[in-house]
Amino acid sequence: MKKRSLYCGDVTERHIGEKVTLHGWVQKRRDLGGLIFIDLRDREGIVQVVFNPDFSADALAIAESVRNEFVVTVVGTVAARSEGAVNDKLKTGRIEVLAEEIEVLNASKTPPFYIEDGVNVSDEIRLKYRYLDLRRPEMNEIFQMRHTATKTFRQKLDQMGFFDIETPYLTKSTPEGARDYLVPSRVYPGNFYALPQSPQILKQLLMSAGFDKYYQVVRCFRDEDLRGDRQPEFTQIDLETSFLTKEEIQAITEEMLVAVVEATKGIKIEKPFPHMTYAEAMDRFGSDKPDVRFGLELKNVAEAVANVDFKVFTNAIENGGEVKAINAKGAAASYSRKDIDALGEFVGRYGAKGLAWMKVEEDGFKGPIAKFFTPENQAAVAGVLDAEVGDLLLFVADKAEVVAASLGALRSKLGQELDLIDQNELAFLWVTDWPLFEYDEDAKRFVSAHHPFTMPQDATLLETAPEKAMAEAYDIVLNGYEIGGGSLRIYKKDMQQQMFRALGFTDEEATEQFGFLLEALEYGTPPHGGIALGLDRIIMILAGRNNLRDTIAFPKTGSAADPLTNAPSEVSAAQLAELELAIEAKKAE
Amino acid sequence: MKKRSLYCGDVTERHIGEKVTLHGWVQKRRDLGGLIFIDLRDREGIVQVVFNPDFSADALAIAESVRNEFVVTVVGTVAARSEGAVNDKLKTGRIEVLAEEIEVLNASKTPPFYIEDGVNVSDEIRLKYRYLDLRRPEMNEIFQMRHTATKTFRQKLDQMGFFDIETPYLTKSTPEGARDYLVPSRVYPGNFYALPQSPQILKQLLMSAGFDKYYQVVRCFRDEDLRGDRQPEFTQIDLETSFLTKEEIQAITEEMLVAVVEATKGIKIEKPFPHMTYAEAMDRFGSDKPDVRFGLELKNVAEAVANVDFKVFTNAIENGGEVKAINAKGAAASYSRKDIDALGEFVGRYGAKGLAWMKVEEDGFKGPIAKFFTPENQAAVAGVLDAEVGDLLLFVADKAEVVAASLGALRSKLGQELDLIDQNELAFLWVTDWPLFEYDEDAKRFVSAHHPFTMPQDATLLETAPEKAMAEAYDIVLNGYEIGGGSLRIYKKDMQQQMFRALGFTDEEATEQFGFLLEALEYGTPPHGGIALGLDRIIMILAGRNNLRDTIAFPKTGSAADPLTNAPSEVSAAQLAELELAIEAKKAE
Repeated sequence: MKKRSLYCGDVTERHIGEKVTLHGWVQKRRDLGGLIFIDLRDREGIVQVVFNPDFSADALAIAESVRNEFVVTVVGTVAARSEGAVNDKLKTGRIEVLAEEIEVLNASKTPPFYIEDGVNVSDEIRLKYRYLDLRRPEMNEIFQMRHTATKTFRQKLDQMGFFDIETPYLTKSTPEGARDYLVPSRVYPGNFYALPQSPQILKQLLMSAGFDKYYQVVRCFRDEDLRGDRQPEFTQIDLETSFLTKEEIQAITEEMLVAVVEATKGIKIEKPFPHMTYAEAMDRFGSDKPDVRFGLELKNVAEAVANVDFKVFTNAIENGGEVKAINAKGAAASYSRKDIDALGEFVGRYGAKGLAWMKVEEDGFKGPIAKFFTPENQAAVAGVLDAEVGDLLLFVADKAEVVAASLGALRSKLGQELDLIDQNELAFLWVTDWPLFEYDEDAKRFVSAHHPFTMPQDATLLETAPEKAMAEAYDIVLNGYEIGGGSLRIYKKDMQQQMFRALGFTDEEATEQFGFLLEALEYGTPPHGGIALGLDRIIMILAGRNNLRDTIAFPKTGSAADPLTNAPSEVSAAQLAELELAIEAKKAE
Repeated sequence: MKKRSLYCGDVTERHIGEKVTLHGWVQKRRDLGGLIFIDLRDREGIVQVVFNPDFSADALAIAESVRNEFVVTVVGTVAARSEGAVNDKLKTGRIEVLAEEIEVLNASKTPPFYIEDGVNVSDEIRLKYRYLDLRRPEMNEIFQMRHTATKTFRQKLDQMGFFDIETPYLTKSTPEGARDYLVPSRVYPGNFYALPQSPQILKQLLMSAGFDKYYQVVRCFRDEDLRGDRQPEFTQIDLETSFLTKEEIQAITEEMLVAVVEATKGIKIEKPFPHMTYAEAMDRFGSDKPDVRFGLELKNVAEAVANVDFKVFTNAIENGGEVKAINAKGAAASYSRKDIDALGEFVGRYGAKGLAWMKVEEDGFKGPIAKFFTPENQAAVAGVLDAEVGDLLLFVADKAEVVAASLGALRSKLGQELDLIDQNELAFLWVTDWPLFEYDEDAKRFVSAHHPFTMPQDATLLETAPEKAMAEAYDIVLNGYEIGGGSLRIYKKDMQQQMFRALGFTDEEATEQFGFLLEALEYGTPPHGGIALGLDRIIMILAGRNNLRDTIAFPKTGSAADPLTNAPSEVSAAQLAELELAIEAKKAE
């Protein structure tokens, strides 16, 4: 094997006159007037190689035989391109390599799709030929970015005194969470390990062990139905600290994220990040992960419409609900009645029974419900919504949850349609003061909004009024995506037991499932807290993609399969027998 | 929460006169003449805190209530210890902290064992209370060392242009290897993922994808019967490169290891590391992973004893076997006949039918077989073994494999018993030129000595004489442990198909199992190779331990169980039903 002198993409005018040895893939071959031009590609970029019979007839002859995606070694001399041949779109566009030798290291069949950006091919084919898909420059760049991001997270955490400590992947199945992936034990047939949904309890035990600051870039597993932004396995930047306040943990998180954004995007983000309570986020944006890159905030118009004789509004208010509105500034002209009907259908998907609307014109509000509004009503609503001529006002009146969900989604949709979002902006936001519990209507009991180890703001409410209990929890949001969540944790046994009781566990059940944690809390476990960041999602946002699959080298499809290796697959009867397992067709129901 | 000003272990004479705030665990409390002394411990060390009624009666009162392993915050002023109270064994032994305030953050029951080095307690208890075990300074130090080692591996790899790319843990079960851990699929009942034994094929596909240099600190899984140096999950420093020679990959490995040894132990190791062929290692040391910190080499005495009329020797030679010996220099006096009988029993465990021996005395060889040796025979043997008066000569005559296994093991045992090993030395060694195959007597076929993707030195032998085929493989050995192995890989489809045929696969079976790899080799896969290092084992050796469990935060027992969390455990009937699995008691055999 000849020794490479530099990467294709790194050849520059500084190398003119130098002899170089390059390894790479044939991106394209062109035969032109007795010469052959090959665009040679490696992970750093593309360089043009010229084969000229005056230079080497042998090399020219070999070059004639190569096809796209052949792997070759080229030895040649770097030369300036002639004035007319300069290509300023290419990093190496001012030079070319005059080939003296070429060796074919491996051939290639014609690939099922071109190795170029923005290729139009099904996801299934991209995944089946993932090694070809990853050759495309845009994919290659994402994984270079991911490498840089992970490295920067690690460097920052190391500088801040965190130890990288690995926790097991073969661990215990616990309730209270998503569905576990199970791993049958051969030594103890009928028993199972679970792949961790997060190293939550083990990292808490590392705090009990006195490591003080732990981190791990760790794979987590959830056997859930998949969406575009879910994968069965995903990677967390997971950390835990002892003796720190929420604010200190948030500052550590900001320190990392600012460094990662600068290292990957060259953008300087201001610290500290803005904070917003959960209640405020729901009120102003109808979302617990608001995209604060644009306005279009939800306004409460209940008071302003109190005198409006429109049953939909008055009924909602009488039933303890809300009336809220979005003012789509200047959008009256661009939304036809039909367009607005489509928006009505859209909010219907979020449970809203209708979308009331009016346009603001020179002579007052216009639209189906305008007749219910006296000039005084109009003035009151205009005041709350800052309404001016040309604005489109959109109302939902319903239960608070429905108003938030439907207007929150409508806000996101309009933000895009009205082009209000600066795609280059990275808007981080802390969302704090979360409810501790959610009520599970199916199970008829409270479940943890985050997890059962989250510290309550006021522990006395665990017994007296769990529905009012707030958590010492904080989520970090970026451009409308939740990219991480953390909390202070319970570190006293009594409080943890109260928590399990509030979740409907008997003391026996709590001990059965979580006895080892309860016991650890009796042996000098320090106050502690932490956070976990979703690495895949952060990379997705930084890379400007909208699917997690583009950030994972070998991702799964929507049915958790891998078209490349064909996993999952059948296994031998002997393998099952060793595990004392049998496959049992589901009984008809 | 008060803000810590520094770690307990970091308080030094530079801080005398300063007020400090410390968080830590009570290592020990002593009451002495109206004063209370507390040794306060955190991850960086221990500092002495003094409670004096003249300083703060309140603090003294609280200090009276604390017990071992309570977590407390102490505020106090650093002072020099009086001359007689200086403890130079302690990093902080020249100072103490005069306490003004103490706050109990959490109490502790009396732990089941003392939190101190070298504690004498069963492994089961240590694992059940792992969070207490990890508080012990020697354990804490191992994980600090592991953090430093991992960080150094990563830094070096990053500097050398490697990208950290994650591969999936839910992947495909393949034959040819150890037993897989399986993960049942819920979406495709009756189908299974496997946890990877290594990311071998996927990292090869990353080379096909053009990433050129890949690395990952990655968990691997093998469902094997466990020994002291095996765990069901273990961590590899896994790397793969394109276009490099064996020597270049070895140089990259040395670059990392030298840096890791310097960062963790402060020892500078010379590069390049010595090389030895597999054949030479087996010949001289009876081991494919020789500990070269000491001599006691195996010497072939077949020629020297050719005329000796001792049936055991002559039979072995006639049957195509070997006669080899170790000269235990100067050990004649310290090994009684009974001691030597014990050595004979020891080699019996490795298949040797007996251990012949003689002692060298002033007037010639003595011992049960001395009578067979003429003075000329003695001179010939003494010449080969460099025998002098006082030496103990130990012989095994048998098939080559038995001679190597038994004398190799005896050599290690004697090296320890005779105290020939410098425990501070780190002796790295490359073992090269491995056989490509081993013959599996049970399966009546060849199996890969490394794995089926290893490049043969001479591919024509795959069809003609597989038993003679050698591999482009290299293992790295440290102090008698294999700490890693690598090879160049097959990158042409034809050769990979030949390899599968040599392993007894039909082409259909090969396609069924490895079709995706074979296909990738048709689309311009570059020449590539790599290596994987066993992180747990490297840390074990660097930390001077002899059990992998001490290098893993939450390890499993010999039956792959976790006494802390009780994994593996039973799961609910609903969980099994979702997977369409039933537990089936093994049929009596």
